[in-house]
Amino acid sequence: MGLLDRIGSPADVRALSPGQVRALAAEIRRYLVDQVSRTGGHLGPNLGVVELTIALHRVFDSPRDTLVFDTGHQAYVHKLLTGRQDFGRLRRSGGLSGYPSRAESPHDVVENSHASTALSWADGIARANALGRRGDRHVVAVVGDGALTGGMAWEALNNIADGADRRLVVVVNDNGRSYAPTIGGLALHLDALRTTRGYETVLSWGRQALRRSGPPGRAAYDALHGLKKGIKDAVAPQGMFEDLGLKYVGPVDGHDEAAVEFALRRARSFGGPVIVHVITEKGRGYTPAEQDVADRFHAVGQIHPETGLPVAPSRFGWTGVFADEVVRIGRRRPDVVAITAAMLQPVGLAPFAEAFPDRTFDVGIAEQHAVTTAAGMAFAGLHPVVAVYATFLNRAFDQVLMDVGLHRAGVTFVLDRAGLTGDDGPSHNGVWDMAVLGVVPGLRLAAPRDEDTLRAALRAAVDVDDAPTVVRYPKGALTEPLPAVDDADGVDVLARHAGPDGARSVLVCGIGAMVRTALALGELLAQHGLAVTVVDPRWVLPVPAALVKLVGEHDHAVTLEDGVREGGIGSAVGLRARDAGIATPVQAFGVPRRYLEHASRDELLTGLRLTAPDVARDVLAALGATA
Amino acid sequence: MGLLDRIGSPADVRALSPGQVRALAAEIRRYLVDQVSRTGGHLGPNLGVVELTIALHRVFDSPRDTLVFDTGHQAYVHKLLTGRQDFGRLRRSGGLSGYPSRAESPHDVVENSHASTALSWADGIARANALGRRGDRHVVAVVGDGALTGGMAWEALNNIADGADRRLVVVVNDNGRSYAPTIGGLALHLDALRTTRGYETVLSWGRQALRRSGPPGRAAYDALHGLKKGIKDAVAPQGMFEDLGLKYVGPVDGHDEAAVEFALRRARSFGGPVIVHVITEKGRGYTPAEQDVADRFHAVGQIHPETGLPVAPSRFGWTGVFADEVVRIGRRRPDVVAITAAMLQPVGLAPFAEAFPDRTFDVGIAEQHAVTTAAGMAFAGLHPVVAVYATFLNRAFDQVLMDVGLHRAGVTFVLDRAGLTGDDGPSHNGVWDMAVLGVVPGLRLAAPRDEDTLRAALRAAVDVDDAPTVVRYPKGALTEPLPAVDDADGVDVLARHAGPDGARSVLVCGIGAMVRTALALGELLAQHGLAVTVVDPRWVLPVPAALVKLVGEHDHAVTLEDGVREGGIGSAVGLRARDAGIATPVQAFGVPRRYLEHASRDELLTGLRLTAPDVARDVLAALGATA
Repeated sequence: MGLLDRIGSPADVRALSPGQVRALAAEIRRYLVDQVSRTGGHLGPNLGVVELTIALHRVFDSPRDTLVFDTGHQAYVHKLLTGRQDFGRLRRSGGLSGYPSRAESPHDVVENSHASTALSWADGIARANALGRRGDRHVVAVVGDGALTGGMAWEALNNIADGADRRLVVVVNDNGRSYAPTIGGLALHLDALRTTRGYETVLSWGRQALRRSGPPGRAAYDALHGLKKGIKDAVAPQGMFEDLGLKYVGPVDGHDEAAVEFALRRARSFGGPVIVHVITEKGRGYTPAEQDVADRFHAVGQIHPETGLPVAPSRFGWTGVFADEVVRIGRRRPDVVAITAAMLQPVGLAPFAEAFPDRTFDVGIAEQHAVTTAAGMAFAGLHPVVAVYATFLNRAFDQVLMDVGLHRAGVTFVLDRAGLTGDDGPSHNGVWDMAVLGVVPGLRLAAPRDEDTLRAALRAAVDVDDAPTVVRYPKGALTEPLPAVDDADGVDVLARHAGPDGARSVLVCGIGAMVRTALALGELLAQHGLAVTVVDPRWVLPVPAALVKLVGEHDHAVTLEDGVREGGIGSAVGLRARDAGIATPVQAFGVPRRYLEHASRDELLTGLRLTAPDVARDVLAALGATA
Repeated sequence: MGLLDRIGSPADVRALSPGQVRALAAEIRRYLVDQVSRTGGHLGPNLGVVELTIALHRVFDSPRDTLVFDTGHQAYVHKLLTGRQDFGRLRRSGGLSGYPSRAESPHDVVENSHASTALSWADGIARANALGRRGDRHVVAVVGDGALTGGMAWEALNNIADGADRRLVVVVNDNGRSYAPTIGGLALHLDALRTTRGYETVLSWGRQALRRSGPPGRAAYDALHGLKKGIKDAVAPQGMFEDLGLKYVGPVDGHDEAAVEFALRRARSFGGPVIVHVITEKGRGYTPAEQDVADRFHAVGQIHPETGLPVAPSRFGWTGVFADEVVRIGRRRPDVVAITAAMLQPVGLAPFAEAFPDRTFDVGIAEQHAVTTAAGMAFAGLHPVVAVYATFLNRAFDQVLMDVGLHRAGVTFVLDRAGLTGDDGPSHNGVWDMAVLGVVPGLRLAAPRDEDTLRAALRAAVDVDDAPTVVRYPKGALTEPLPAVDDADGVDVLARHAGPDGARSVLVCGIGAMVRTALALGELLAQHGLAVTVVDPRWVLPVPAALVKLVGEHDHAVTLEDGVREGGIGSAVGLRARDAGIATPVQAFGVPRRYLEHASRDELLTGLRLTAPDVARDVLAALGATA
């Protein structure tokens, strides 16, 4: 029986001896590699925070003290230490979430997986604690150095610096990379802090403090570290955190659990906001991850634990096509540049960056800046392609509307992981883009259905120089080619089922990844004696006039999308049809306004009754009702 | 004939002697006070940047060099120096915009009035210049110290610090306040830079540089300043800008035109990114503005130029009711706290702040942080009221969706200036909130129609503790009381026109400020022999079941809202009606997907055909078509 089996709650972690702590850390690492290689998940980030998380639970008293993990994918170790050790169904329906989850544990607070939010959460909780006479409770935010490049983190730091009376500890987990090496002036500054201060600074500071606190503290300190590290009074430069008025402790070796614990205890005793700068290695202790410069181990599918090679074929089909086509476009068009928000590899921009390093810009986890700087580039004659996960563009909605849209800037947004993504839980689904972008004047949005239409959409998108264009596609394997059988003024006709004489006619409009379902739906409806036309407009915003015309030529219309129904494409088609005086009812199928638990994409579609048989039943019922 | 009359372009500004520059500055100040007191507009910010703007146009060569003004309300002086001196119809239809406008001048680049974007624009333009072999052109971003509290500015600074080869000058116009005194750690740091460095630092640095450049430069320098200021080699502390790797010049007295010009010339010659820290006084030279601690002169309606007192009665009717009611709520509910993003006065939170200083949080121009920190406070037992202009909540859409909504946090958003605001141009209209917030699961939104319904909505909103609530109301005078004549399961019935026997029935649903129009529409339709019911659901998201039921009980339904139609309330009502198998057509009137030029609210409503007679014509036409 291992140590891990005996950890039922943080109290058990606090009871361990230093030697047991080391053993526990090693055991956790083995467990993570073994488990995550089977289920897929965020491996590298969690291997990096083993000692840090142990130290957090030994120094602070969760859930009385509040631990907030930024981009909660680094919370696996936290889960293991708070009574959740069944990783067998991690990220699957009914199993543990890949992120903190309030439904799982009172130790979890923030479920949002979007970066740079933890400091704002922590500041709010600390302010409330101070106001509610719970000022003795601590709030600890664990945030990556990459997340500090996000604007929200700055907004929060600026506010935290104002709060001398708040017990707030910000742990900067600095591994020098978020998904890829962290960029910008901040990264250079963190580097400078690392090198000029040396790891021993915290020890020096702690030692002075302990000297003042008298023999017991000093003895504790000596026992802890046995003076094994050289201690000197470094003349440290003022850092920017201290410029802001924040107490700074660090840097400290994040894999020396005792050192981290010591730094955290000092921070805890300070009584005001403190930054603790902890240096960790992403993928620590797992050779394939440590040796990987391209950071494939940030999040993995199923892998062979020994080699780190994928078990299943690549799941990046759509991304791969984009990766290829954008390089082709770049060869033809020297004005095309690429922008990523710290996601060069995941969004498929690595080949472009290799071919055109001067034309590739990684702006950090900074979607707002990515979008507005693209508007600036477009003003000065370039055509930027901003590639981002669909869920993250929500963070820059105002910039799309006010900088790109209002200024009629020729910027192309490529939204990967659009629609239902499933296993990463509610905040990774990309189901809002079509509804939200639908209000942006002039914006044109394409939802390709297969490889050919994706390539064509990208080529067409970069040719638009006076409006934003968007190309969105799902996570997962590429759909097999779905060729059109006819063209109706630019709308692809994919199937026509004539039906018997006098049959009522139904238009089925599939959008993007739902075109396959639309085709299956068409066949089912035809079997019920209906005349069915299955179409794919490909460009769905603004709603094509030809599609509205088609609606008017049928007795009933059905739209199928993997985005929210409210304000979605079906809703827009209905609005336009009524504007045109068309009485044909438009039945809109899509994702309901609801947060979706983690599950596979297919499980979600089934649960939402978005399979062809389910939709067919509803369509037939509606036709019965309006017969 | 004054000097200003002779300024047709920046070249004329460059030709002026130092004495003429001083005279021009004085003339511009008189002109601004005289004109803006007649038309209304942003007075204080522009009085503060007179010398700075003159210096910018003397040192840089716009439009070859690019000048980007953050929150363009500080661009009046820039307009005067670039050939636009007819301020008589400022912010009115057909007159000059209150913000930069590409349609007005090739000297204008960024029209977006939302803060903190200029650095991202400038970085994009500078990167494009560097790539396009236009690397000798300069890009200058003028940004307030308040705007630096916004996250986007941080994201941009982090990127700018990476660009040693880009000719980018960031002018920090530091008046120690945005709308109100700037908050947070950054403000303290700027204070420290101001006091420890002294104004002479820039001169010291410049002098050293000139000494190296030999006699002519030194002579020029001496002539410029006559050594009238003491010069010393200050041992300046490293500031956070330099920590980030950015060259820092300053601070410099922003009302000493020669000093500003000198600093800008030095920055221009540096060849890489430079921060120039300029200290200015908002309202400089206008006694009422200088003496005003509450910053009422940031933006003014028509005022008496001598006293600064308003000509018209207060236009803050809706805001005033909120200001009063939130204090009453605060007395009753000690858990209610208020959050503002640097807009304490404009959103009406000043009385609350006076009554409950400990429960009022100004987070800076940081909407993202405001929203997420509210989620944190709600987690810890408070009920935050986040008061913000409707247009600015777009900046925190992701935080509403992912922090407040996903975590079922009891946070109330109060959206002032919702709907058509008009004279501040496209980016100040608040027409997107209902469409965009319509996708947030669980969110409840009220659009009150008058004082009583506003008070009731606020009281109800703060009673919801497991979901976000939103109360939105327009800019402008309060509507007169519009009492209900009946209640239909929670939907207010405001008028019933029986119509002749067998008359077709129409449901008219007015939303918020459009209820008045709905009542007028109801009368017009009744005159045409229709049976009309005019209703106001007050709470419009989610769409009340009672409203859907009412739709089904009529032959035709009309919705009227002052938000975008796409995904708006009318669209949502139509979706719900079809879901319920109701065949009644829902005709949705609202704002089209279009950016709206500045004009008065009434002019906009007329132009958009949203007056009662226009809508009546369209409704009658639709009824004819479906007869």
